[in-house]
Amino acid sequence: MKSFYILIALGFLAFLSAFAEAQKGVSKEDRELLERAKSFFSPLPKIADNPENKVTPEKVKLGKMLYFDPRLSKSGFISCNSCHNISTYGVDNLPTSIGHKWQIGPRNAPTTLNAALHIAQFWDGREKDVEAQAKGPIINPKEKASPSPEFVVDRIKSIPEYVELFKKAFPEEKGAITYDNITKAIAAFERTLITPSRFDKFLQGDTKALTKEEKEGLKLFIDVGCITCHRGPAVGGEMYQKFGLVKPYYEVIKYSDPSKIDKGRYEITKNEGDMYVFKVPSLRNVSRTYPYFHDGSVWDLKEAVSIMAEIQLGRKLEPDQIDKIVSFLKALDGDIPEDALKLPILPPSTERTSKPDPM
Amino acid sequence: MKSFYILIALGFLAFLSAFAEAQKGVSKEDRELLERAKSFFSPLPKIADNPENKVTPEKVKLGKMLYFDPRLSKSGFISCNSCHNISTYGVDNLPTSIGHKWQIGPRNAPTTLNAALHIAQFWDGREKDVEAQAKGPIINPKEKASPSPEFVVDRIKSIPEYVELFKKAFPEEKGAITYDNITKAIAAFERTLITPSRFDKFLQGDTKALTKEEKEGLKLFIDVGCITCHRGPAVGGEMYQKFGLVKPYYEVIKYSDPSKIDKGRYEITKNEGDMYVFKVPSLRNVSRTYPYFHDGSVWDLKEAVSIMAEIQLGRKLEPDQIDKIVSFLKALDGDIPEDALKLPILPPSTERTSKPDPM
Repeated sequence: MKSFYILIALGFLAFLSAFAEAQKGVSKEDRELLERAKSFFSPLPKIADNPENKVTPEKVKLGKMLYFDPRLSKSGFISCNSCHNISTYGVDNLPTSIGHKWQIGPRNAPTTLNAALHIAQFWDGREKDVEAQAKGPIINPKEKASPSPEFVVDRIKSIPEYVELFKKAFPEEKGAITYDNITKAIAAFERTLITPSRFDKFLQGDTKALTKEEKEGLKLFIDVGCITCHRGPAVGGEMYQKFGLVKPYYEVIKYSDPSKIDKGRYEITKNEGDMYVFKVPSLRNVSRTYPYFHDGSVWDLKEAVSIMAEIQLGRKLEPDQIDKIVSFLKALDGDIPEDALKLPILPPSTERTSKPDPM
Repeated sequence: MKSFYILIALGFLAFLSAFAEAQKGVSKEDRELLERAKSFFSPLPKIADNPENKVTPEKVKLGKMLYFDPRLSKSGFISCNSCHNISTYGVDNLPTSIGHKWQIGPRNAPTTLNAALHIAQFWDGREKDVEAQAKGPIINPKEKASPSPEFVVDRIKSIPEYVELFKKAFPEEKGAITYDNITKAIAAFERTLITPSRFDKFLQGDTKALTKEEKEGLKLFIDVGCITCHRGPAVGGEMYQKFGLVKPYYEVIKYSDPSKIDKGRYEITKNEGDMYVFKVPSLRNVSRTYPYFHDGSVWDLKEAVSIMAEIQLGRKLEPDQIDKIVSFLKALDGDIPEDALKLPILPPSTERTSKPDPM
């Protein structure tokens, strides 16, 4: 019994000394940087739940299958994952996406990773959440091109395994297969696509989780003013902003065809104040989600940082400053949840399933 | 010590009685069917190794990444997995595949699952193995449309993470990134895509692994003569055969455009004896690899079985016989290896990586 108390005492001493060591190891600068960072950012939540569409394992399982199922497209060739490829951090790494009949989309496909945390969806914020967003591309004639929500519902209904999975995912509605529930399931899966990184460890107090250069980059990111827009758990996605606040973006990104100049939210609201206004993108995993901007016109992250400083903040950054900021941004590369990386096996079609139509 | 011997003795008795029980449970018919089946089929191997391209974990890891990497295509949109989707048993479930600029391919995409076991590759057997096969679609202008093998090699070389992985996968060649090694790695991954099913358990002696109806189907499959061509571990893939042995296939599958009648191996060999000759497809996972035949013209497995009996064997099967055969065929649905279902995370491009080009 005596030896038991000795063990307890030794354990407590070990804990105290480790704690003192840790405190000793944190410099004043690091403590200050951490405090400043905590005033702009917060660690990612585990999932981005929605009280109106509770994330349940049954819904996530079904939603992942639908996310990977090319039968949501008219052609049977394009799935959500075609353009929001989980293997490449939720994007296709193309300037703008390829859709039905090889049509080229108008704007760069944003990542689905951490997207559920955003204030709204799409570059122009025209849909309020991932539930509403998922309804668009399936029936967009330039994307998955399904002729109607009913067409999609009928296809899914024709597959008995899906019927069972809808019953489990939406028990309170007797498993109703509706377009709403199809997109709710996809959205529930997307709400699990949260990618914590070393930056989250830093925000949780582990100041050693970032390297010296990354911390210098973070300090610059704050001091230069990037945090004016890129803030919150997703380091962006929280607000709208004019692209080209101090200098028109189309004077820096030159377009051979001026009709390609995108007016952003103005196209939706027809409000002059929304001219060239876009949703501020999240910078989580930004080193993997090239090419950049709403038009995917810039491939190099350093160039993107330089352009942003110039046209948003009216600053010319030194190469050394850009290197440090990029170094910090790379520390935002996170871990894709293991479950999302497990490919689902898709249930077979039946004779009642409408045939894929490439035309 | 005494109780130890008693335990041993009891254990031995339990074993003997279980053995006797198992022997008793196997009917004479089952034993005979098993013996007949074993003369035509054999269980799947664990992997389909190749002495000239040994399957190593390093090669498989790299090969899986390349299999899922759309950068092997000119557009950066199409990967091997686009048409040989692991989620849908290595096929796209389209009559014929969609390729670069939405071009529609001439023949149905065969599954990559168990393909490494085949006598040769492609419907016409024009390539000898999966190593040689993988070289085609990457540079086929109708498929991935990469302009040349050098183009692909340069793209892969521009990605430092791939350079490291090639060193590990091909240590004896100092990690040479060559078109040969790119396709060898993809092939090594494909050589792991083996899908054992309940039928393999049956062949290993567990006669209860198949239901009564499945066993009746297997018996019919043998008696009717399907095993003339569909034999071996892959239940096919072992030989070439004329499609329409006793009746021209294009008299049963009607083509609105007679130029669509495919001459099979004749197109390669120009040998009259190869007219309408194709490689016999494997029937492993056949219930999941619809639509059927080289042209993907038939969606219903029952119809496919009926047509095969008619044009290959000159027999008209009863609906009840077809049901039983289909029931047996469904017992060939196997398990996709878990490792193949784990999506790889693809390494990022660099400024040296050639840009995706949709045109």
